[in-house]
Amino acid sequence: MQSTAGVQSHEALELLKTRLGSRVVTSGPELERVSRDTSRYAPIGEALAVVFPESTEDVSVALAWANQHRIPVSVRGAGTGLSGGAVAFEAGLVISLERMNHILHIDPVNRLADVQAGVINGVLDKAVREYGLFFAPDPASSETSTIGGNIATNAGGLRCISHGVTRDAIASLEVVLADGSIINTGARTLKNVVGLDLTSLFVGSEGTLGIVTAATVRAKPIPEGTPHTFRASFDSVEDASSAVTAIVNGPIATEVLELLDARSVEIIEEYQSSGLPTTGAATLIGQVVGNEALSGAEALVALCTEHGAIETTVNQGDGLLEARRLANPALNAKGLRVSCDVGVPIGELGAVFRGIEEISRKHDRGISVVAHAGDGNLHPTVEAEDTEEGYAQAELVIHDITRLALELGGTISGEHGIGAVKQQELSWQLSDATRAAQLAIKTALDPHHILTPGRAL
Amino acid sequence: MQSTAGVQSHEALELLKTRLGSRVVTSGPELERVSRDTSRYAPIGEALAVVFPESTEDVSVALAWANQHRIPVSVRGAGTGLSGGAVAFEAGLVISLERMNHILHIDPVNRLADVQAGVINGVLDKAVREYGLFFAPDPASSETSTIGGNIATNAGGLRCISHGVTRDAIASLEVVLADGSIINTGARTLKNVVGLDLTSLFVGSEGTLGIVTAATVRAKPIPEGTPHTFRASFDSVEDASSAVTAIVNGPIATEVLELLDARSVEIIEEYQSSGLPTTGAATLIGQVVGNEALSGAEALVALCTEHGAIETTVNQGDGLLEARRLANPALNAKGLRVSCDVGVPIGELGAVFRGIEEISRKHDRGISVVAHAGDGNLHPTVEAEDTEEGYAQAELVIHDITRLALELGGTISGEHGIGAVKQQELSWQLSDATRAAQLAIKTALDPHHILTPGRAL
Repeated sequence: MQSTAGVQSHEALELLKTRLGSRVVTSGPELERVSRDTSRYAPIGEALAVVFPESTEDVSVALAWANQHRIPVSVRGAGTGLSGGAVAFEAGLVISLERMNHILHIDPVNRLADVQAGVINGVLDKAVREYGLFFAPDPASSETSTIGGNIATNAGGLRCISHGVTRDAIASLEVVLADGSIINTGARTLKNVVGLDLTSLFVGSEGTLGIVTAATVRAKPIPEGTPHTFRASFDSVEDASSAVTAIVNGPIATEVLELLDARSVEIIEEYQSSGLPTTGAATLIGQVVGNEALSGAEALVALCTEHGAIETTVNQGDGLLEARRLANPALNAKGLRVSCDVGVPIGELGAVFRGIEEISRKHDRGISVVAHAGDGNLHPTVEAEDTEEGYAQAELVIHDITRLALELGGTISGEHGIGAVKQQELSWQLSDATRAAQLAIKTALDPHHILTPGRAL
Repeated sequence: MQSTAGVQSHEALELLKTRLGSRVVTSGPELERVSRDTSRYAPIGEALAVVFPESTEDVSVALAWANQHRIPVSVRGAGTGLSGGAVAFEAGLVISLERMNHILHIDPVNRLADVQAGVINGVLDKAVREYGLFFAPDPASSETSTIGGNIATNAGGLRCISHGVTRDAIASLEVVLADGSIINTGARTLKNVVGLDLTSLFVGSEGTLGIVTAATVRAKPIPEGTPHTFRASFDSVEDASSAVTAIVNGPIATEVLELLDARSVEIIEEYQSSGLPTTGAATLIGQVVGNEALSGAEALVALCTEHGAIETTVNQGDGLLEARRLANPALNAKGLRVSCDVGVPIGELGAVFRGIEEISRKHDRGISVVAHAGDGNLHPTVEAEDTEEGYAQAELVIHDITRLALELGGTISGEHGIGAVKQQELSWQLSDATRAAQLAIKTALDPHHILTPGRAL
């Protein structure tokens, strides 16, 4: 049976090569490279081939082929995903959009840019900056991740508190459906209520409904003035959390508002000292932009002091954010992989931090937390050995954290997505009826479930 | 055949009455009232009955019944829709959510409110104002339209330039699907990437995918300071449009930015003089909020003067907006119904105004235009007799305006939706493949097409 299927796949592959030539690679390091992402998901399937499309038509040909032959497809931008959504399927096809990396057009008057899906986030940002604009979505991976990947996961980042998520920066999409048909969604206008909001449906759908090949994205004017960054240390996470709530509900807009617990601060300072005070229980780092940035930042540290801050600093520029940016490299250097991405309503920040401390004690296992505090999105990292057993133990801790977030009215993923890694937790948040509706929509657009099957939904 | 169907429907109706009692009304003025909306769409179907559900379960019972008996369903909030989306179907069921009008909970810390779908927009706004918050979506119908209707059409309003559309204010939804099953979408967190973005899919779906019975909406803090309003008159729509582009791409945020052409100003001043200068070709009215509102408004009128404004005024408070709010009553008083809702990218405002002038000359028919200039959304009103023939003639003019908007990269509807009225224009904007994808999604969630069939998609 398997060998028959193998022969059939081989014959089918020859057909694909006839159509796409050297854009199809069936073995070697290139295939291996595109078969994985940045998650620890295993097993990684042994794919039949990878296609490196150079046009929307190439994607269409590849999908029509996969659909005809019922080949499972994984879709890949730069492979920076943390949830296993782009990991290759056994006997599957990988479609890597890395060659579709052209910025097609920049329209500064309407602040729109037409880009192919494989354009790197940071490259787009740099390109629109020449017109006095910037691209707001800024995942930690912005220097390497692609716009297509950002769209597939509805990526977040540091600036979400001020600018929203990737979806908020997308005007329209070009999408290839499972059968190879090409559709366009959305409009170039700011408002558009024509038909269903397919744009939002494809954003964050993690490769399960279609392949985004191009997008019209919205850029924003670079704020005037010099950004100012502030830092406030607190004796307790409760004080820090109440300061966050006060800031978020106050009149001064923050561009960034991040919270590091004591363990994170320690790990960062061990990795590369950036002068963070290591005496407190939590450190808040924020940024204010615009012409009133200095007075805004000063008002916010005054508010922090009212809420019990024991040390505050205001600096011109980006400097204080550097410590926050060191969190991921510092954790990686310790062999710790960010593995949790829960969110809670802002008002529950204190409760979730307190609960995580209890979970840490219960499991007798260190947990460090960095949080996009301004939007209630936490990345707790569980200390564990870099072995399968170590990960399995850490997973149990993560399950407890995830349940805690849900009890507090939260979510199991704020920005990393479900992918293959969080399939088990999915039913903790979504009811059977909601999942059935999702699957009905998937089946409507991808009747043979060739697109990232069994993941995300 | 018809009489058999009639008998069957009658028997089926008895079953529904057994379940829902006096919440089912099968004749009389109540049924007539809920069979129409604010559009001029005809014919209005003679519905079998209206259900006034008092709970989500009532809606579930009614839909399961309609699904079983293949009865077409129209869904109604307050009937303020302008596109015929809520007009009754022949032998159909009307579901009116007006009794589901309870604000269930307000959570000021997280700036969330849980509301039933029949809550009036303005009532919700008033309720959250007691906590220092406001509800940003402000369609012209805000004093009468329901949140459920706002959600169904993804309603816009004056403040979209600053706060986005209804979708941007929705955290999660409770939806009853065609088979009566109840699902929940979204989350109470600011970020959530779990599964498909069903929330955005239902927002703006105009009753075609399910019935929204409740929503968790996001409120915003009332800005500090006193709002200031400004007005600038221009000799040409091109000058006014270039001022709009400069304002939108500049650093000062506007809460409102509206443009009235000379004909609109004339109609408003005829109706009730509000001191608008009637000499220019176009009048821009804007508002700035926050502690810097006065200096902001002054800077914006200076910018308008740079772009050729011949008269400018800055006032404290809301006063200057009053003239804009008179536009709809003034047009109604003249028997003119706002019948067009096109949008263009901001940079094309001058071109679309110029084009509309040409269309007016070509058809020898007066066209007045009010525009949410800040987001490129125009409401041209074609002068026509209030007769069927008059409307038919006006429709041809509207078709020309619609084609013009599309040629300029625009949309056929910015905020009123497609409903029954714009079915013909739909294929001008959406490709067959895109419409097929929409219909596949509809069929997945509503296999027998009982929900608002043949409209919106």
